[in-house]
Amino acid sequence: MVKTTQQWHLASKPTDLPELSGPNQTFKLVTTDLPALETDQVLVKALYLSNDPAQRGWISPDADPERLYVPPVKVGTVMHARGLAEVVDSQSERFKKGDTVLGSVGWSEYAVLNAKDVQPAPDLPGGLSKTHYLGALGLTGITAYYGIKVVAETQASDTVVVSGAAGATGMMVVQIAKKMLGCKRVIGIAGTDAKCKWVESLGADICLNYKSSAFKDDLVRATEGFVDVYFDNVGGEILDLMFTRMARHSRIAACGAISAYNANSDRRAGLKNWFEVISMRIQVRGFIVLDYLSKMSEVLKEFRAALQEGKLKIDEQSEHVVEASFKEIPKTWLMLFDGSNTGKLVTSLR
Amino acid sequence: MVKTTQQWHLASKPTDLPELSGPNQTFKLVTTDLPALETDQVLVKALYLSNDPAQRGWISPDADPERLYVPPVKVGTVMHARGLAEVVDSQSERFKKGDTVLGSVGWSEYAVLNAKDVQPAPDLPGGLSKTHYLGALGLTGITAYYGIKVVAETQASDTVVVSGAAGATGMMVVQIAKKMLGCKRVIGIAGTDAKCKWVESLGADICLNYKSSAFKDDLVRATEGFVDVYFDNVGGEILDLMFTRMARHSRIAACGAISAYNANSDRRAGLKNWFEVISMRIQVRGFIVLDYLSKMSEVLKEFRAALQEGKLKIDEQSEHVVEASFKEIPKTWLMLFDGSNTGKLVTSLR
Repeated sequence: MVKTTQQWHLASKPTDLPELSGPNQTFKLVTTDLPALETDQVLVKALYLSNDPAQRGWISPDADPERLYVPPVKVGTVMHARGLAEVVDSQSERFKKGDTVLGSVGWSEYAVLNAKDVQPAPDLPGGLSKTHYLGALGLTGITAYYGIKVVAETQASDTVVVSGAAGATGMMVVQIAKKMLGCKRVIGIAGTDAKCKWVESLGADICLNYKSSAFKDDLVRATEGFVDVYFDNVGGEILDLMFTRMARHSRIAACGAISAYNANSDRRAGLKNWFEVISMRIQVRGFIVLDYLSKMSEVLKEFRAALQEGKLKIDEQSEHVVEASFKEIPKTWLMLFDGSNTGKLVTSLR
Repeated sequence: MVKTTQQWHLASKPTDLPELSGPNQTFKLVTTDLPALETDQVLVKALYLSNDPAQRGWISPDADPERLYVPPVKVGTVMHARGLAEVVDSQSERFKKGDTVLGSVGWSEYAVLNAKDVQPAPDLPGGLSKTHYLGALGLTGITAYYGIKVVAETQASDTVVVSGAAGATGMMVVQIAKKMLGCKRVIGIAGTDAKCKWVESLGADICLNYKSSAFKDDLVRATEGFVDVYFDNVGGEILDLMFTRMARHSRIAACGAISAYNANSDRRAGLKNWFEVISMRIQVRGFIVLDYLSKMSEVLKEFRAALQEGKLKIDEQSEHVVEASFKEIPKTWLMLFDGSNTGKLVTSLR
């Protein structure tokens, strides 16, 4: 019987890019006792971890428990993360040993979870890996659907721009906009030419590399008739530029601001083109997928239908699975912030 | 018969605060010929000019004709302005000599206007001055109503914050929110203690002086339970601070950004707290009263009813009328940007 587990704890709240070592080390590896398994609980072993930019917000020093949408991680406690895990012991009628489940495993080799907080992860059709439950067929896929369809109320006649287009959410926004909603024009923004090529293969009419020196000119040219919907994953300078490319009465779905997550407010690029919001009567709506979870099974049904009709492509390229030892969890997570992943970044624990 | 007129022309587009003299002088005084009066036109003499922060946008060097909601003023042409004028000659059946009318007179002593672009300005009840047609009972009053009631969909249960609360629009927002919509709590923000006292006399539960060193603490205290609706007239640092005080699923009606109008984008305070828009699911809507003009007579009817019921107070304090010679028009207009006016700033031409 497993009595202890390795865990990554939050050691200190980072003001900038989290540090893997040194006096300001963000996380520390500990071995800790597992609580005894009680009725309606399961003991699980982590198999795959979901890596999400939002996790950065949960460890910020300025994270205000009163205002954050999930409780921030406390120093000295295990880092939160969603994951796929295997049930190794069960005191629940719903799960048995050997089941694969989804839940908030955290950066913990083993974890005791309440059965009510755990979802089953049955086999996927078409031989798709269950890891897609962490991405396209999980929260990032639902985030994309909620933002582009419900929050931005995107119509077929719309010209859509998506930043972070090669990321876990963006790759789904591109496909939903172009192939499920039939949008007139879908423009992606990503960080390498290779990513852009992939985004175009998903259906984007064009994808622009924001690291190119010609980016601004390229964007102006690509959005000549202005933009009806901007799905923003990045915030910062690209959002500020997009304000100037929005059409009158256009909509912005504000999903993320990854450009700012590792910069304290002094170093953050401030938004300067705000007046465009007024003069062009732009509507901006911030959103969080947690408000839409009640629709999850409905949306997944729609995704499955779209997969069959060829309106949605989910394959190995939709995720970036990194094999890692338990020790390498923080390092793998940090790949989110240097642009090295394409699609959903998943840690596969060796 | 009047054949010529004095006019203030745009001499050069200001990147910062408009200059009254020197090589970068923004405006220049000229005498020019009046066109001959044609059928369905009126010749008018300007009596009162409306001073509006929006005029600053029409003379910006970066004003893009494709994106501005009214055509920008061209260098070498008359500065645009709305005003009250007297008809001195008429080739229209709708107006006769001696009538007082409302229209886009511009900074021009005399002007020839198409009768279809001119509105009559009949006497107001209760002995109110016709100058209120330029403020509370004109576009700024309608702006307040449109923003707080329609754009922000404000309800009686809402806590509302209004910046620029002692300005032409803000003073109406305070009254509409508190007395017409019956909002639970209305918090004004203004630039002097005297203005704040006046805003409180209009119905605000509290008004905070943003120039006070305790402003930030005062705002946090005054918005303890967070804010449902923020009516923003100022943009910049106050908007950025307000992002951190908004409740979950709250709304921002973005009406103006006077803090930025005289600063080119290098010097503009950028917005840094953008992530709050996402995490708190804030909805921001930019708006321009021009989209709502079809409802003007309906709203004015509601205002008249509210005046009779004592739910709206419009008096001499609601406007700041400055007697000025024609030469002093630009100087008077600039009072908008140094905080010296309370209520609607109106130039009364001597």
